[in-house]
Amino acid sequence: MSNQTVKKVALAYSGGLDTSVILKWLQETYGCEVVTFTADIGQGEELEPARTKAQALGIKEIYIDDLKEEFVRDFVFPMFRANAIYEGEYLLGTSIARPLIAKRLIEITKETGADAIAHGATGKGNDQVRFELGAYALRPDIKIIAPWREWDLNSREKLLAYAERHAIPIEMKRGKASPYSMDANLLHISYEGGILEDPWAEPEGDMWRWSTSPEAAPDTPTYVELTYERGDIVAIDGERLTPAQILAKLNRLGGANGVGRLDIVENRYVGMKSRGCYETPGGTIMLRAHRAIESLTLDREVAHLKDELMPRYASLIYNGYWWSPERLMLQEMIDASQTTVNGEVRVKLYKGNVTVVGRKSDSNSLFDMSIATFEDDRGAYNQKDAEGFIKLNALRMRIAAKKGLKFV
Amino acid sequence: MSNQTVKKVALAYSGGLDTSVILKWLQETYGCEVVTFTADIGQGEELEPARTKAQALGIKEIYIDDLKEEFVRDFVFPMFRANAIYEGEYLLGTSIARPLIAKRLIEITKETGADAIAHGATGKGNDQVRFELGAYALRPDIKIIAPWREWDLNSREKLLAYAERHAIPIEMKRGKASPYSMDANLLHISYEGGILEDPWAEPEGDMWRWSTSPEAAPDTPTYVELTYERGDIVAIDGERLTPAQILAKLNRLGGANGVGRLDIVENRYVGMKSRGCYETPGGTIMLRAHRAIESLTLDREVAHLKDELMPRYASLIYNGYWWSPERLMLQEMIDASQTTVNGEVRVKLYKGNVTVVGRKSDSNSLFDMSIATFEDDRGAYNQKDAEGFIKLNALRMRIAAKKGLKFV
Amino acid sequence: MSNQTVKKVALAYSGGLDTSVILKWLQETYGCEVVTFTADIGQGEELEPARTKAQALGIKEIYIDDLKEEFVRDFVFPMFRANAIYEGEYLLGTSIARPLIAKRLIEITKETGADAIAHGATGKGNDQVRFELGAYALRPDIKIIAPWREWDLNSREKLLAYAERHAIPIEMKRGKASPYSMDANLLHISYEGGILEDPWAEPEGDMWRWSTSPEAAPDTPTYVELTYERGDIVAIDGERLTPAQILAKLNRLGGANGVGRLDIVENRYVGMKSRGCYETPGGTIMLRAHRAIESLTLDREVAHLKDELMPRYASLIYNGYWWSPERLMLQEMIDASQTTVNGEVRVKLYKGNVTVVGRKSDSNSLFDMSIATFEDDRGAYNQKDAEGFIKLNALRMRIAAKKGLKFV
Amino acid sequence: MSNQTVKKVALAYSGGLDTSVILKWLQETYGCEVVTFTADIGQGEELEPARTKAQALGIKEIYIDDLKEEFVRDFVFPMFRANAIYEGEYLLGTSIARPLIAKRLIEITKETGADAIAHGATGKGNDQVRFELGAYALRPDIKIIAPWREWDLNSREKLLAYAERHAIPIEMKRGKASPYSMDANLLHISYEGGILEDPWAEPEGDMWRWSTSPEAAPDTPTYVELTYERGDIVAIDGERLTPAQILAKLNRLGGANGVGRLDIVENRYVGMKSRGCYETPGGTIMLRAHRAIESLTLDREVAHLKDELMPRYASLIYNGYWWSPERLMLQEMIDASQTTVNGEVRVKLYKGNVTVVGRKSDSNSLFDMSIATFEDDRGAYNQKDAEGFIKLNALRMRIAAKKGLKFV
Repeated sequence: MSNQTVKKVALAYSGGLDTSVILKWLQETYGCEVVTFTADIGQGEELEPARTKAQALGIKEIYIDDLKEEFVRDFVFPMFRANAIYEGEYLLGTSIARPLIAKRLIEITKETGADAIAHGATGKGNDQVRFELGAYALRPDIKIIAPWREWDLNSREKLLAYAERHAIPIEMKRGKASPYSMDANLLHISYEGGILEDPWAEPEGDMWRWSTSPEAAPDTPTYVELTYERGDIVAIDGERLTPAQILAKLNRLGGANGVGRLDIVENRYVGMKSRGCYETPGGTIMLRAHRAIESLTLDREVAHLKDELMPRYASLIYNGYWWSPERLMLQEMIDASQTTVNGEVRVKLYKGNVTVVGRKSDSNSLFDMSIATFEDDRGAYNQKDAEGFIKLNALRMRIAAKKGLKFV
Repeated sequence: MSNQTVKKVALAYSGGLDTSVILKWLQETYGCEVVTFTADIGQGEELEPARTKAQALGIKEIYIDDLKEEFVRDFVFPMFRANAIYEGEYLLGTSIARPLIAKRLIEITKETGADAIAHGATGKGNDQVRFELGAYALRPDIKIIAPWREWDLNSREKLLAYAERHAIPIEMKRGKASPYSMDANLLHISYEGGILEDPWAEPEGDMWRWSTSPEAAPDTPTYVELTYERGDIVAIDGERLTPAQILAKLNRLGGANGVGRLDIVENRYVGMKSRGCYETPGGTIMLRAHRAIESLTLDREVAHLKDELMPRYASLIYNGYWWSPERLMLQEMIDASQTTVNGEVRVKLYKGNVTVVGRKSDSNSLFDMSIATFEDDRGAYNQKDAEGFIKLNALRMRIAAKKGLKFV
Repeated sequence: MSNQTVKKVALAYSGGLDTSVILKWLQETYGCEVVTFTADIGQGEELEPARTKAQALGIKEIYIDDLKEEFVRDFVFPMFRANAIYEGEYLLGTSIARPLIAKRLIEITKETGADAIAHGATGKGNDQVRFELGAYALRPDIKIIAPWREWDLNSREKLLAYAERHAIPIEMKRGKASPYSMDANLLHISYEGGILEDPWAEPEGDMWRWSTSPEAAPDTPTYVELTYERGDIVAIDGERLTPAQILAKLNRLGGANGVGRLDIVENRYVGMKSRGCYETPGGTIMLRAHRAIESLTLDREVAHLKDELMPRYASLIYNGYWWSPERLMLQEMIDASQTTVNGEVRVKLYKGNVTVVGRKSDSNSLFDMSIATFEDDRGAYNQKDAEGFIKLNALRMRIAAKKGLKFV
Repeated sequence: MSNQTVKKVALAYSGGLDTSVILKWLQETYGCEVVTFTADIGQGEELEPARTKAQALGIKEIYIDDLKEEFVRDFVFPMFRANAIYEGEYLLGTSIARPLIAKRLIEITKETGADAIAHGATGKGNDQVRFELGAYALRPDIKIIAPWREWDLNSREKLLAYAERHAIPIEMKRGKASPYSMDANLLHISYEGGILEDPWAEPEGDMWRWSTSPEAAPDTPTYVELTYERGDIVAIDGERLTPAQILAKLNRLGGANGVGRLDIVENRYVGMKSRGCYETPGGTIMLRAHRAIESLTLDREVAHLKDELMPRYASLIYNGYWWSPERLMLQEMIDASQTTVNGEVRVKLYKGNVTVVGRKSDSNSLFDMSIATFEDDRGAYNQKDAEGFIKLNALRMRIAAKKGLKFV
């Protein structure tokens, strides 16, 4: 994207060192006005310092938005309706925040008359793709500046030297510098890099920031009751809460009980494998509980269809296609399936375990005790029906076997 | 199947009350000779009493076979290569044993000149389907007798009365009678019925038989190192073992650490929902560890294709289609994918948790630290390539957005 | 279903010999009142004779309904939005009519206080399944009588003897008796049985009833222009028509040009293969034309997702699951995708061929000539982007190849 | 790829104007040695002129290979086992030739010590992707030069001027210059560009080169009998032929009868829609006939699984992933399914129509007339079995309906 003319750029700005350097670099390289956008999506950091820093760098238009409710209501909850997991393990904590940032950045370009956006994601990762696919889908003529793909500040030393040269304060965000590359929002916190680059190495215990270790968690379990309406949690232990409040509370409950740590090797969209560690306490509870309420209220074939499409839906989110027509199309189907997903789930949290111990739905349970019972069912189910069921299901295989056909 | 003429029937015989009553009932109702077949598939019970009982009931041809190695090698291991889970939770412990029983029953009919088989599964469950689809696929002209679908002994009282009338010993298998319907093999033990028929009720602690509860498990973790060859575990902590030995050892290790308890509502093939509890200590470890070694050694798209087909493969096994051509066809593909699945996985077991803490593969790792690194990669990856990658992936969405098209 | 008590039964009544015998047999066997229901779904037969016959057999409540518009609008059109084809060939002409009959039969049971339905489909075919699954889904307590599965009139001779015994007129519907089992509605006419039972035998030329043979069709082509709105045809050659009028007109145009004959072996849901011949002139045109308008107006990934789900959607309809929640769920997604499917398609009909020769969409075309052109595109597309696109898509394969890994 | 140092490059060389200009441009721009590779894959052109031209341009190492048999045996036939069609219409004629060219180019780099390849595909199309993904998969360190993405000869005029400047002969290949961009091999010939860039315009009759128009085709049909072994055609009308001979003969038969013309708008992998016309006479026959022999010899669920995976398999080929592990994995499954696909198919060719009029398989037919018959089946099939089959399949919907649950 170099060589392009840019008048005003909206920058996704955290207030940290990297994006502060980017801010300065944009001013220098493109000679353009910069608008900063800092979002509170539950990463748990003070945002006002970002304002101060931006002002110090001469920024006139500074956006600092609390997007926590929108994030959980319009992004996290719809995704959990699908029971989305990437590659059998990953709850998509980073992936699901990016399309919201992209959307708000594009809105800001329209509000401020900017013709470009910029972000601090590197050229090796998934986040650049998520930001940019979203931006292009929402404003096809947008110009995009990804400094990490353009500049020559491709080492820590050069970055620090640049900061020093331009009097950008190099404070460390959380006490001493973390050896990990981290990302946090209300759904999760992630760790990459450092010793994690060796997939055989176990993460050090002090890496984890949100959750107690299972070993240090309480010796008595915590029971929680979740109320579902149309596939979303609307109350915890009977108390109605907003979406963001629900996720925050589940994070506290899960984190305190050692729930939600994950250590995986994943396949990036750009073609390489990488190792990541994640803490997703609330999300881990939500996934198990949602499956439990669905197990009672969803038709079998609907549930199976969802399960077969889930990996693709999860890949779409992982790869940055939240704003694509195919994701929207799948969402229509998923949301339609949630009409009957109402009821309560009771989970037990104990030293890293999330155990479903009960599920009920007064209005929508498809569990029919009168049929399923091992006791006398008074004719609710005619066992003789099973013979014909089996015989016709076997017919094609019997015909083949009679002819002595061997497959494969 | 009533009204048919049967000369000799091979009965899947456990030696327990139900199949003893069936044995007698077959002799009485069909006036035919009965061959008994009792398999050791790791259910953990003495089998010689079954011989004594069968002899007491006048049986001449008694088969008692140790099938543990065949069970794990030819059924459990191939299934785990697919990471099979039914409905997001169930590890298919009962489902995977039935096709082996069906196969051996049919072999026995051929060895003994029997023209029919009989089993003790009810007309409400999945097991009748699994037995019978297997039998029909392997011997299409076989006659099948399912007494529970035919007789009028449809309550506990009538069964006991029948037993008493025919001097069939009514001993309780494990001390006092369990209130649950159970099934066990080397992969798992299952519980249904009793208070579990209320999906809101938490199972009582003393129901579980194989595993220590997480609460009572040791306070220090156990680390285990698993060696994979072509997708199967061949050694534990460096010691090469047979398939059955491996599963038995993982059951001990997992069970001692509170691993593998599950409590779900599932959708039966015959159309109803039922509640089941399962203990699968070794299988729970195997699933996580297999995913971990695949995460390092499997191509991304191969892994995703496997993930998308897995729910269907799992349903085939759950529904009894192990011997179907479509399962065989999927297995060809799954097995072909495992050529490179070689290496080691290190897992930590602690109070119910199975955590993967390391994975490596000297010969087959696709994890390329020189590319994935956050440090200087010396040109192994050109970050500028990402721009074109993103732009062409965005092109269709940009064209649509330029025309102002809204989807959905 | 024998042995059940029935008070009043709603019978799907064609007025032909078979269902007239059934009518009488129901009265005799169940001693119950019978309501007849005869639907005009475009089969092209006089329905008033059915009334006369029913009256002659003493029927008081006689329903004769014109369902042609509902049939095309609510069943045929939604199905064509999905480009549904069963097993690569069959346009589902019979399958799609059955759920409508089931729905209306159940409505009639409610209007008349009937507690049962009856139909004339045999126990070997798919239609029994389609009628009954629909009926059970819409009224779960309905009793169903399928005389062909119950009675002993299992040959033509016995049926005729029964008819004679009860003075049921044995007129042949279309001049001499057809050697084929046929079914017709506005979408198609089907032929089974007779010499078709040998899949090596070519059908005789005089079997076909709706279409001219390609050989006898006009020597000059017919051009037709179809207007689409949200995936449905709303006008032919600029003339707005109702759904049933559209299908009728396309049948005439296609039939006159030898379009829509099909000869296949298909897999029935009950487990056997059968051979069927079909004439679907209008449907054959609709399928090609719908794909053509979608090729211009549908996003690539949406189109591909539809294609991947289509076989399953088609199987659901073939197998009788129109009223199932999974079909409804898929339909939500399919319908959502059709928002942009607006425009015109021009097709050429000539001696059996349907050729798309033009497609356009003023408001919704995603075809961008300025980008696709082989001529100078003035920078609309940067060819250099392709290098990065290819390199990142190749990355995972390059990493594997560098390590010398061979798959499969 | 500019700025790289190249020692010797293997060029995919047709002998036409474009690749002759490229040859010269490579010598000039990279100052490197050039090896030319010209393949006979059935495009129907003399190849010796390519040798003469290459020699005139100073080339020392000239490869001219007849790859027709390899092309059909190892690429076309495996693809047709899958019934592959892209986007419901396109038979992948261009797509399937590219991986073979890529493979042979890479072999030649190894034989000649070349470190780079070059091709004449533009930066807008699919072919660049297919060449390059194949090359990278087979030799990950290969350098790739795609002149159309690099040079400034981006119009016809500049190209001609360059040719004139360097004394490259500008003869027109087939009499006067075609207004279309064409590609041909033994499977098909394609047309793009020119008036086709307007998707509403009907192609002119004289565009088509391989096939007679349906209008001009003979007034009497041609019948052909095809013999299949393991899914491949091995004989035509009883005469055993090699794969290339079979395809050539079917092209003649089909082309003479107006078979195989196609006119579509397709979605390119690089993100744009384009319009293409294709002639695939033999392939069109092969697709219909293969489905017909499978309809008799393939298990229903195997056939359905193949149908559901086919669109993805076709996309892999279209997008250039022939040499990917996921294509190889799918191929394993597809090939495994073809064991029983043996027998004969009889097709009728008439003025553009391919009609299957018979299919048989002495050893592998799963069509069981004794069961399927409309006549008395002597108990081969018990119609009463259907009742239980339907009732259990309906059970989940009945339970839902009893509770008054509405889905969607």
